[in-house]
Parts: sequence; C-alpha cells; structure tokens
Amino acid sequence: MHVTTVRARYAETDQAGVVYHASYLPWFEVGRTEMLRDLGFPYAEIERRLGVLLTVTEAGLNFHAPARYDEVIVVETTVTDVRRVRLRLATGLRRQLGGDLLCTGHVWLAAVTREGKPVPLPADLRACLLRLQADAQGSSP
Amino acid sequence: MHVTTVRARYAETDQAGVVYHASYLPWFEVGRTEMLRDLGFPYAEIERRLGVLLTVTEAGLNFHAPARYDEVIVVETTVTDVRRVRLRLATGLRRQLGGDLLCTGHVWLAAVTREGKPVPLPADLRACLLRLQADAQGSSP
Amino acid sequence: MHVTTVRARYAETDQAGVVYHASYLPWFEVGRTEMLRDLGFPYAEIERRLGVLLTVTEAGLNFHAPARYDEVIVVETTVTDVRRVRLRLATGLRRQLGGDLLCTGHVWLAAVTREGKPVPLPADLRACLLRLQADAQGSSP
Amino acid sequence: MHVTTVRARYAETDQAGVVYHASYLPWFEVGRTEMLRDLGFPYAEIERRLGVLLTVTEAGLNFHAPARYDEVIVVETTVTDVRRVRLRLATGLRRQLGGDLLCTGHVWLAAVTREGKPVPLPADLRACLLRLQADAQGSSP
Repeated sequence: MHVTTVRARYAETDQAGVVYHASYLPWFEVGRTEMLRDLGFPYAEIERRLGVLLTVTEAGLNFHAPARYDEVIVVETTVTDVRRVRLRLATGLRRQLGGDLLCTGHVWLAAVTREGKPVPLPADLRACLLRLQADAQGSSP
Repeated sequence: MHVTTVRARYAETDQAGVVYHASYLPWFEVGRTEMLRDLGFPYAEIERRLGVLLTVTEAGLNFHAPARYDEVIVVETTVTDVRRVRLRLATGLRRQLGGDLLCTGHVWLAAVTREGKPVPLPADLRACLLRLQADAQGSSP
Repeated sequence: MHVTTVRARYAETDQAGVVYHASYLPWFEVGRTEMLRDLGFPYAEIERRLGVLLTVTEAGLNFHAPARYDEVIVVETTVTDVRRVRLRLATGLRRQLGGDLLCTGHVWLAAVTREGKPVPLPADLRACLLRLQADAQGSSP
Repeated sequence: MHVTTVRARYAETDQAGVVYHASYLPWFEVGRTEMLRDLGFPYAEIERRLGVLLTVTEAGLNFHAPARYDEVIVVETTVTDVRRVRLRLATGLRRQLGGDLLCTGHVWLAAVTREGKPVPLPADLRACLLRLQADAQGSSP
C-alpha cells in the first residue's frame, strides 16, 4: 500500500462547510501519481516518453465522513487488479494513519494512445504493478 | 427522466485534450438541481428554508467515451430509489438526445441537518420523488 | 457589449457560503466564448482549424459583492483594446440586467501557436473585434 | 518573504497542455495559508475562533510563462500593505528558487464577519503582518 498526504484547500470546500465531493477525485489522482513516482515511473514521463495515457474508465466513491478545510488527509493507494490494458486501484482517505476512513473508492485506468486507442500497459510498469498487487494480497490477514 | 444540458468549458478539460473525469460530477449535480427545480423544490430553498442538505454518500461513474471542449452535453437524470432518508439518482450523459452514452453514473444522496445528522426526506419532496420513480419504472420496456 | 448568463453551481461555492473567488474566471471565459461564437468565430474552431490559441496573459478582478449558489449571473463582455497579437476584454457580472455590479474585471489574451509562439490575431477575427470595440466606444456617453 | 511549494496536478491543466489560468489563484491561497500558519495564525482558527473571514476583494495576475503538469512550483508570498481592515499580499511563482517568474500577482483581503460586515483585522495578527511588511521593505535593495 502506498501512502501520501494532501491538505484540504479552501477552494475544495463548498457552502455545506466541508470538502465538495468531486474534490476527492483529484486527491485519488495525487495518490496514484505519487505511487507511480515512487515506483520509478513518473506519470508525466509515461505520457511524454511512451506516449501512453492512463485514462480513467470507471470511478466509485463511498463517503463515510466529511473532510474539512485545512485538514491533512492521508491518501492510501493499493493495486488491486492488473490486466493487459487495464489497472484497478483502491484508495482510502483518513484523517490520520490508522484513523477512521473518511472515504473509500476505486478507479479503473486504461492505457491508451494520445488518440484514445487502447494499448497494452508498458511491460516494465506492468511487472512492477503486478509485484505491488502480490505484496498487497500477501499482506492481507 | 429529466433532461437538461451543459456546455463543456475550457476549465473542465485537461491536457489529455478531453473533459477531466472529475468535471462530470458537477454536471451530475446540474442535472439533479434542474430536476428538483422543475419538480417545484429548488435545492437552494430546501437548504435555506427547511435546513435540510442532500449530501452525496456514494457516487459511481463509468466513462464510455470522452466529452470534449465546447460540446453541448445532454444530462439525463432518473430517480431509481427513494428510501426514508436516502435517494438514488442515475445519470446518463450524451452528445445529443438518443445519441451514444458518453458516461453513466449514479449518486446516493442522504438528507442531513446542517450538523450532518440524518433526517427523513421532507415529506412532500419524498412523495414527488416516489411519483417520478414510479413513472420511470412504468416507462421501461 | 455582449451579454450571456451562467448559474452558480454548488461546486463553485466555498465554506464562506458564497462563490469562491477563482470560480469567476471560468465565468469570464464563458462570456468571451459566447461572444466569439456570436461573432461567428467559435473558439473551438479557432484552435482546431487555425491552430491559434488565445492564451490569458493578464487578469484582474474586483469583487464588489458576493455571488451566491443558484443565482443566475449576467456576464457582460466588452472589447476594450485590440492590438496585432493581443486583445483586451472587460467583464462585468451582475445579478440582473441593470443591477449592481458584483464583480468587474479584465483579461488580456495573446494569440499563440500550439507551441506558445506569439502570432498575429487571425485577420478576419481581428477586423470583427475592432468593429466591436468601435461600437463599444461609440455607445459610451 | 514566505516560501512554500505546490505540485501542479493533472486536474489543474487544460487542453492547451499547461496549467489553466484560474488554477493559480488556489496556489496563491496555499501560499498565504502557509504564511499565516507559520506566523502562528492558522487561517482555519481565525475563521473558527475569531469568527473573522479574510475575503478576497481584488486579485491581479500576470502570466509570464506557463506552469506544466507535475512541476513543483515555488510560491513566494510577501506582505506589501496592511491597513485597518485590509491587507495586500504579492505572490510570485517560479519553477525553482531564484528561477524565472512564471506568474506574478496580488490579492487584497478584507476582514469581514460571517455576515460580510467589515471589521478591523485582529490586533495581534495585524501587528505580526506589519512586522513582516517592514522586514520585506527593509530587505529590498
């Protein structure tokens, strides 16, 4: 499981006094961006050097408790499925490590060309993700 | 089924050249806001006069094809479930009436007080939503 | 002066209970997008067919009174300066035609290639903008 | 001068392939939020404990060069004017300390109550800001 943090911005709140629900998806994105960087595959380079985009084809979010302005939110990202073209990541948001989950969710990403044509995940990235997935499964009770 | 439209803004695109995936959730919101207005329950008044917020507790999105800058997108909203406190809406996005679906999704909304405590849906709103749901089911083939 | 409207979305508010200040810039953009469309130069086509982008090089905003959720805001756009490469637009936001100004502002736009190199404004667009500017000046008291 | 950093998110880019111009205002906000925190006045507490909001009444931005996805941007915030009710901050964005300025700008903030009524800046915060301003002026050549 990969862990990083974001701090809730004023821009991300709404008039209900909490973080607006759509603001969580960019946080999910920060989570997977930092995971890919830590794996040695910065997403900016995947796009620029390989011409491969990882496009979101599905997203799901369950909101358990609201995040609030200026809170530091722990973003946990886990690789839960790796196919030939596609990839599934689960994300959990907490106020602190080991704290209650504020939000759980997932995205499916598909590797596509700049024109939107599906292509296989880059082989070395895929090998790396499969290793992460195996680790994640191994660490479950 | 309620129908309204939005036009994709430059602000809603990303460097992949298409609408950013999180930008669809505010479009879902435009869909249900206009549905509630057309039902005679403008959401702004539900909040202000009744002190009831409809907060998103779950959201799901499936992206079938990208929306692009400046396209007029048809937003179709259907009431699919009405409980005592909660409400489920399905949303479909198309480039034109009867055209292919670009995105399908749903949200669960819960009625809560300003402090976040669950409360029953206002009775007249609930009656109205139940009627819409019955209509939606009756119109299915 | 060109006039269009936007309706303030929940997503555009913040926890102060009003529209977040950065949300006004996309509204300015809606104003100029609709102005260009009404002039016969949809911005999407300027980008796609001519390969010319109108990039914001300067923006200024004065906030006089807050816009609120669900209000329909009148967006008034005026051409105030047209140079060889650059263009200045003034924008005013009101709650209704002839009502008080909520926000006044301006942007400078520069014509650039996809690589960011400045280029002259397309000649027919420029002629059209100059005409609009002359009209705007003629209509001042 | 106060210095912090942000990393440009995919959500903050647009189809021109660079950071969307309105995305810089939340970065200005991150700059002043972290400055206030480092001064010992976290903005969240100013709002919650003192009931005072610092609302943006004016903003100006000059865009010199585009920021790009995934770049770490240095946000420099300087106190340039402190009045009884209002406060002016200048912000500069660079790709690295001492690097070229990508964007320069400013905001005027006014202290207001939750109902929007102007009030004097909290005295201890104001004293602190005046000290910062004097330092900033003293450090100019």
